[in-house]
Amino acid sequence: MREFRAADYKAQHFDWKVENKVATLTLNRPEKKNPLTFDSYGELRDLFTNLVYANDVKAVVLTGAGGNFCSGGDVHEIIGPLTKMDMPELLEFTRMTGDAVKAMRMAPQPIVAAIDGICAGAGTMLACASDIRLGTARSKVAFLFVRVGLAGADMGACTLLPRLIGLSRAAELLYTGRAMPGDEAERFGFYNSLHESDDVLAAATSLARSLADGPTFGHAMTKKMLWQEWSAGLGECIEAEAQAQAICMKTKDFERAYTAFANKKSPVFAGD
Amino acid sequence: MREFRAADYKAQHFDWKVENKVATLTLNRPEKKNPLTFDSYGELRDLFTNLVYANDVKAVVLTGAGGNFCSGGDVHEIIGPLTKMDMPELLEFTRMTGDAVKAMRMAPQPIVAAIDGICAGAGTMLACASDIRLGTARSKVAFLFVRVGLAGADMGACTLLPRLIGLSRAAELLYTGRAMPGDEAERFGFYNSLHESDDVLAAATSLARSLADGPTFGHAMTKKMLWQEWSAGLGECIEAEAQAQAICMKTKDFERAYTAFANKKSPVFAGD
Amino acid sequence: MREFRAADYKAQHFDWKVENKVATLTLNRPEKKNPLTFDSYGELRDLFTNLVYANDVKAVVLTGAGGNFCSGGDVHEIIGPLTKMDMPELLEFTRMTGDAVKAMRMAPQPIVAAIDGICAGAGTMLACASDIRLGTARSKVAFLFVRVGLAGADMGACTLLPRLIGLSRAAELLYTGRAMPGDEAERFGFYNSLHESDDVLAAATSLARSLADGPTFGHAMTKKMLWQEWSAGLGECIEAEAQAQAICMKTKDFERAYTAFANKKSPVFAGD
Repeated sequence: MREFRAADYKAQHFDWKVENKVATLTLNRPEKKNPLTFDSYGELRDLFTNLVYANDVKAVVLTGAGGNFCSGGDVHEIIGPLTKMDMPELLEFTRMTGDAVKAMRMAPQPIVAAIDGICAGAGTMLACASDIRLGTARSKVAFLFVRVGLAGADMGACTLLPRLIGLSRAAELLYTGRAMPGDEAERFGFYNSLHESDDVLAAATSLARSLADGPTFGHAMTKKMLWQEWSAGLGECIEAEAQAQAICMKTKDFERAYTAFANKKSPVFAGD
Repeated sequence: MREFRAADYKAQHFDWKVENKVATLTLNRPEKKNPLTFDSYGELRDLFTNLVYANDVKAVVLTGAGGNFCSGGDVHEIIGPLTKMDMPELLEFTRMTGDAVKAMRMAPQPIVAAIDGICAGAGTMLACASDIRLGTARSKVAFLFVRVGLAGADMGACTLLPRLIGLSRAAELLYTGRAMPGDEAERFGFYNSLHESDDVLAAATSLARSLADGPTFGHAMTKKMLWQEWSAGLGECIEAEAQAQAICMKTKDFERAYTAFANKKSPVFAGD
Repeated sequence: MREFRAADYKAQHFDWKVENKVATLTLNRPEKKNPLTFDSYGELRDLFTNLVYANDVKAVVLTGAGGNFCSGGDVHEIIGPLTKMDMPELLEFTRMTGDAVKAMRMAPQPIVAAIDGICAGAGTMLACASDIRLGTARSKVAFLFVRVGLAGADMGACTLLPRLIGLSRAAELLYTGRAMPGDEAERFGFYNSLHESDDVLAAATSLARSLADGPTFGHAMTKKMLWQEWSAGLGECIEAEAQAQAICMKTKDFERAYTAFANKKSPVFAGD
């Protein structure tokens, strides 16, 4: 079977470290608020694609260095070149960025985003493609695509954002490109909780740690089902879950939980 | 035509009474916070399946005895035996529990859940499968599947919960299994309203009464359309509603409403 | 190519004016709180269908005269005649009303609804079929279909409303037909923001103005994608957006934005 040793991976365009089954991916060009580049899009796509085959990572924390999450595609490094491309090149680019989102959703590990400061443009899509989002009151989330003359339909924005916060609020944010402050983002359900700037990364890491110590075979199934059931019929989804959960009932983690409860102890999960 | 006389039904594994078109189903093993058993899952499935053929029930109240809603599948009565089953038996179980949810959605009567105290595990899915949820501030809703080593994908959870409160909040609750307190449940839209513990059942019964006294042919159509339109295209849904509402315009209740309004009276509906 | 000159259009059953790319459609029978009639439904359908071919309108404001938005189908002018129709006529009516909603969604211009006072019955569907809704605290939104003996499934209500505010809250509103006050409508996400009665139309017009001055080719793509992606799979949606955004990257507005940013100026968009 193919295996990817995530702990050994040397990232080129962002920081990557793995500690005891929790990986932390840090966008790290703080002087420009951590923009994405052609190279970093591609590396995100390839790394998350490889995580399907990783056994040493069970949860991922996604964050940015220097008090900001991600400023999106840089004007000079991305927007400028795009204005000069022909259609096949443009489509190659938009597919690469979309494939980064798809790879984040297809990776079996839950992704916890820790968001402070600026979260803009393509950065918002990395946030949306995460499973859980922890934010700060001072952070600003702006779906900027419209500001550069484009549609709000970028990297799955018109699919991802409405699923998270509903079509009404998503429409207003995508049409206007305005900045959504942190408290509003929490009120809308975009953020799952608010934290102090000094604490948000630690909180995300702590949550990722608890997920990595949980029944990770089950978590991977939860992640798969949560997004593929959205657009399917109720009856089909319930049958799909009957099968999915029957599979999970054959894991040792299920038996571990029962044995622990029967002995009035807390279960220790191993992900198998 | 097949007919099921709901008022004559003698429930074996929970309490069941019918008063003037409103049925009340009470999970009643208060010493264990009203857990579900193999038998009660099956009886829920069969009873709600039969309600398709009942003419004497037009709304259902679902509640639990002794200050709690439902603690889910019991560790000793359900979890233990499941750890010893082979795959065909497991699938028979997960299909039975899923079929209980499907039967609740397919029954034409609106279901109003009155939720106090503990609402956990499979109990949360009975709540999600209801049409309207009234809760209390002290109640706790916990999607506990992860705590027993399983996926959050149980009885349609990954379909039902995101439709009710969005994918962002649903993901956090299903991954962590944490208890959602009553005020948060109302803020997220899980509860439609909050009530005092002493009042929540009366409020649910009063709402069910008003629904049962309303245009129940129309209510049954509303219930059918609300869940089957979610995963279909906008154009197809609008055509489906054009047909559905044209059918309802042929009911006597529609004419009763017009006659009443024309005479400046309140309409009295009969459900035909 | 077919062209519709919106500025020259003489509306018969409501007010219509076009000023500098922003159209304002005012339901104007204030003595009856702006009800809809057979004629006005048909004209709404035809006008929005024509807007696909209009180059002189880039955003639409939808409002009502005299402090109310719309009281829905009039009891005497609509409900009465409907009770006497046979099925083909009824279906012709429900398809006409549904087609008005479809035409609003298919028109490429974003629609901003300014809602004060009463927004009831079919009026709620005109609000739901808009892209952004600005409301007032004193306004009341009531999905009244149930009150006239019908289903909540009218003009796409069971599709539109759950997409905006989730299935839980939508169900309660559609089953009961109760009035949702303005602050609740904002809290649920139905309204995007609340305004004073004297200001709500100006706020909607200002927002429509900024949209009309934006990258309107992109806006039209955003509108198309937001609603058609809801019921499709994640992978297909991301590919669809890769194509949609690649198309938008070939617009002059994209180049205008880049040139402006590179010169530290604000971009002036032209919609091509």
